[in-house]
Amino acid sequence: MTFDNISLFPVTAAVNADDHLTLGGCDVVDLAREFGTPLYVFDEDTLRGMCREFVAEFGKRYPDSKVAYASKAFVNPAIARIVAEEGLGLDVVSGGELAVAKAVDFPAEDIYFHGNNKTPDELEFALDYGIGQVVVDSFHELETLDEIAGRRGMRQDIMLRLSPGVDPHTHAATTTGILDSKFGFSIETGDAAKAIRQSLRAANLNLVGIHFHLGSPIFELEPYALGVEVALNFLSQFKEEGLQLREFSPGGGFAIGYLRNEPPPEISEYAEVIAASATRLCDELGFGTPRLIVEPGRSIVGRAGVALYTVGGIKDIPTVRKYVSLDGGMGDNIRPAIYGSEYEAVLASRMSASSEEVVTLAGKYCESGDVLVRDITMPVVKPGDIIAIPSSGAYAPSMASNYNLNGRPAIVMAKDGDARLIRRRESYADMMMMDVV
Amino acid sequence: MTFDNISLFPVTAAVNADDHLTLGGCDVVDLAREFGTPLYVFDEDTLRGMCREFVAEFGKRYPDSKVAYASKAFVNPAIARIVAEEGLGLDVVSGGELAVAKAVDFPAEDIYFHGNNKTPDELEFALDYGIGQVVVDSFHELETLDEIAGRRGMRQDIMLRLSPGVDPHTHAATTTGILDSKFGFSIETGDAAKAIRQSLRAANLNLVGIHFHLGSPIFELEPYALGVEVALNFLSQFKEEGLQLREFSPGGGFAIGYLRNEPPPEISEYAEVIAASATRLCDELGFGTPRLIVEPGRSIVGRAGVALYTVGGIKDIPTVRKYVSLDGGMGDNIRPAIYGSEYEAVLASRMSASSEEVVTLAGKYCESGDVLVRDITMPVVKPGDIIAIPSSGAYAPSMASNYNLNGRPAIVMAKDGDARLIRRRESYADMMMMDVV
Repeated sequence: MTFDNISLFPVTAAVNADDHLTLGGCDVVDLAREFGTPLYVFDEDTLRGMCREFVAEFGKRYPDSKVAYASKAFVNPAIARIVAEEGLGLDVVSGGELAVAKAVDFPAEDIYFHGNNKTPDELEFALDYGIGQVVVDSFHELETLDEIAGRRGMRQDIMLRLSPGVDPHTHAATTTGILDSKFGFSIETGDAAKAIRQSLRAANLNLVGIHFHLGSPIFELEPYALGVEVALNFLSQFKEEGLQLREFSPGGGFAIGYLRNEPPPEISEYAEVIAASATRLCDELGFGTPRLIVEPGRSIVGRAGVALYTVGGIKDIPTVRKYVSLDGGMGDNIRPAIYGSEYEAVLASRMSASSEEVVTLAGKYCESGDVLVRDITMPVVKPGDIIAIPSSGAYAPSMASNYNLNGRPAIVMAKDGDARLIRRRESYADMMMMDVV
Repeated sequence: MTFDNISLFPVTAAVNADDHLTLGGCDVVDLAREFGTPLYVFDEDTLRGMCREFVAEFGKRYPDSKVAYASKAFVNPAIARIVAEEGLGLDVVSGGELAVAKAVDFPAEDIYFHGNNKTPDELEFALDYGIGQVVVDSFHELETLDEIAGRRGMRQDIMLRLSPGVDPHTHAATTTGILDSKFGFSIETGDAAKAIRQSLRAANLNLVGIHFHLGSPIFELEPYALGVEVALNFLSQFKEEGLQLREFSPGGGFAIGYLRNEPPPEISEYAEVIAASATRLCDELGFGTPRLIVEPGRSIVGRAGVALYTVGGIKDIPTVRKYVSLDGGMGDNIRPAIYGSEYEAVLASRMSASSEEVVTLAGKYCESGDVLVRDITMPVVKPGDIIAIPSSGAYAPSMASNYNLNGRPAIVMAKDGDARLIRRRESYADMMMMDVV
């Protein structure tokens, strides 16, 4: 392996005798030829490995822990099946994500339904499927769900999402646990206390625990310790009122590496700070050992996914910038346009070529903001070359659009030299399927 | 009509006896009940009216003018059919947009194929359909297209996209005509001159004109005059080398109103400055009267579209912010998240209610950045109320995603009291249609 950003690629990444990048034992140039580009390649070993690392690192530090995969990072039936096989639970945030879970018979009791504005239809669907817990986010939802459960003559287990007022120092658009947030019941304003008391009184709801989520991606450890401390200290006042903390979730938001010089904490470090602070506080405050739920999304699926593109037109503007146009862009990965996200890239079809010039990798969308990687040092590329962008598994396919009516990419799962299609490429006819003339 | 931002809504907007907003004679509360929310309502009179206004305003100032609708703002078969019925041409930027044109038998000779990185497959498709002109954007495309046309034994009409180096003072992500751009052949660097000469020599291409596009939305008139002047002055040097300017396109980018206090120029004002400068320069430089092509997208379809949402949970954080959660958000309209775009909104289910408080209209997506309108003064709303956001026709449905696996909204076309579905709501099954387990 000759490139120096290997830790950003899946664990199976290598270079073969043809000087091509391989993932899961598959030559990516062959994959590009077989399936076309843009193509998203997921490495099954990395995906399963991350599931196992989370289970192991939290499990050995906090025995009654549960890892629930946050579907919103990216889910489809193939991914959900692997997550279930690895024994993880599942976070869903919509009826659509629940439908994927149902499509693979995901164990209902291991499903958590999050979201700041679940519709009545979505709540009905969740109760139809018998999901483990609804993570209630507002008084309106508390009342709606109590009414729905009552009508069904059942008691639904719930958690409450608290807003602890802790700033995780990430992008403003993905910071969720501060006071000024649409999510959860604020401790500071008194809403959290009111919601706990209302839940304890609700005839058809069973309050089993609380959840908070600080934001994503969080590169620091301290916010987790602080969040756990703020939340548990706050909750201790409700023990006398009947609050039994059976489950406790400090959420997710665990970072992954996008740039070679910005490594994230190890999973073991996140596990250590969360398990240690939860253990200490629960002990001090007499909460016993509630089940600890952690909810990684990006960190399970992000590194496993690599995006492949074919180079098209190249436009050199001397002394200004050299644009290399790829056959994908903001339609399949909106993160650079929306968050200013930065990525690395390699010339997958000539891995040993030396880096010689600074270029900007632009997409094919009719918008100047459609740039995937700005000012990256690369080998000299030519039309037809294959470019690979690592760390593309999370929030790229899941946020993909049909902008400019470009079909969304095919997705393959690579393992042991085989690649199986887990999502076919969207065709022109597919994009008009819902249209009525 | 009691609201003061009427000019942002479709021309048929009114308030009925039930105090509900009506569009195209349809009560939007009824539409929300019948088709569900989020729902996009297009007003056919506004859509056709904008087509006619463009044709009339340019036509009376520059007789040989052609208005080509820029599909990327939003197109589907129903929209494309109306555009064709109104006698407009069509700009496409992908095989997918061309496929929509083909689905309604859009006249091939009136189609212009734009884009900085058309794939070989897309160029083949364009030539199969016999489109009028390929707007060539790079040397790679010039060579590829010459080769493809040659293999077919034909000569393809082309325009060249020039980059004139004029700043239209809009959002950096949508500024396209400056030197540092992935689009077109730069006049300043000499690429434009080289591309013209290469096109004139190309055996299988027929250079019929040039195109440039400055950006979008452009609220000023002066950049158009400057662009026309820069481009035509530059082109005059190639007359002796055989350049015949049969077509001349200063692009689109015409603004619409999003906020009540930021009105855009009238179409007549854009027409006046473009027609006057083109007429004067063509006359001075001896270009005769090339056909003038203008390419509005947003300004044709933007005002015609209104987004309807149902209010869900409401979260009041005293002294900080009051969040009103809607059942759509960044999945159906990413513009606020990506460009910081601002919108107005009205309480469509109680139009005469007086504005009493400042609220933030948040979406249902699991992301703090999912806010549709920040800090807007509204009547006090309650769950179940219907909110209407005007100026939603352009770059909202066209950029919609399945983020969080929320299905994309249904779209109806309203006219004379009837609403017909032009796109059905995306179902859970639809969202898994391409998945392979």
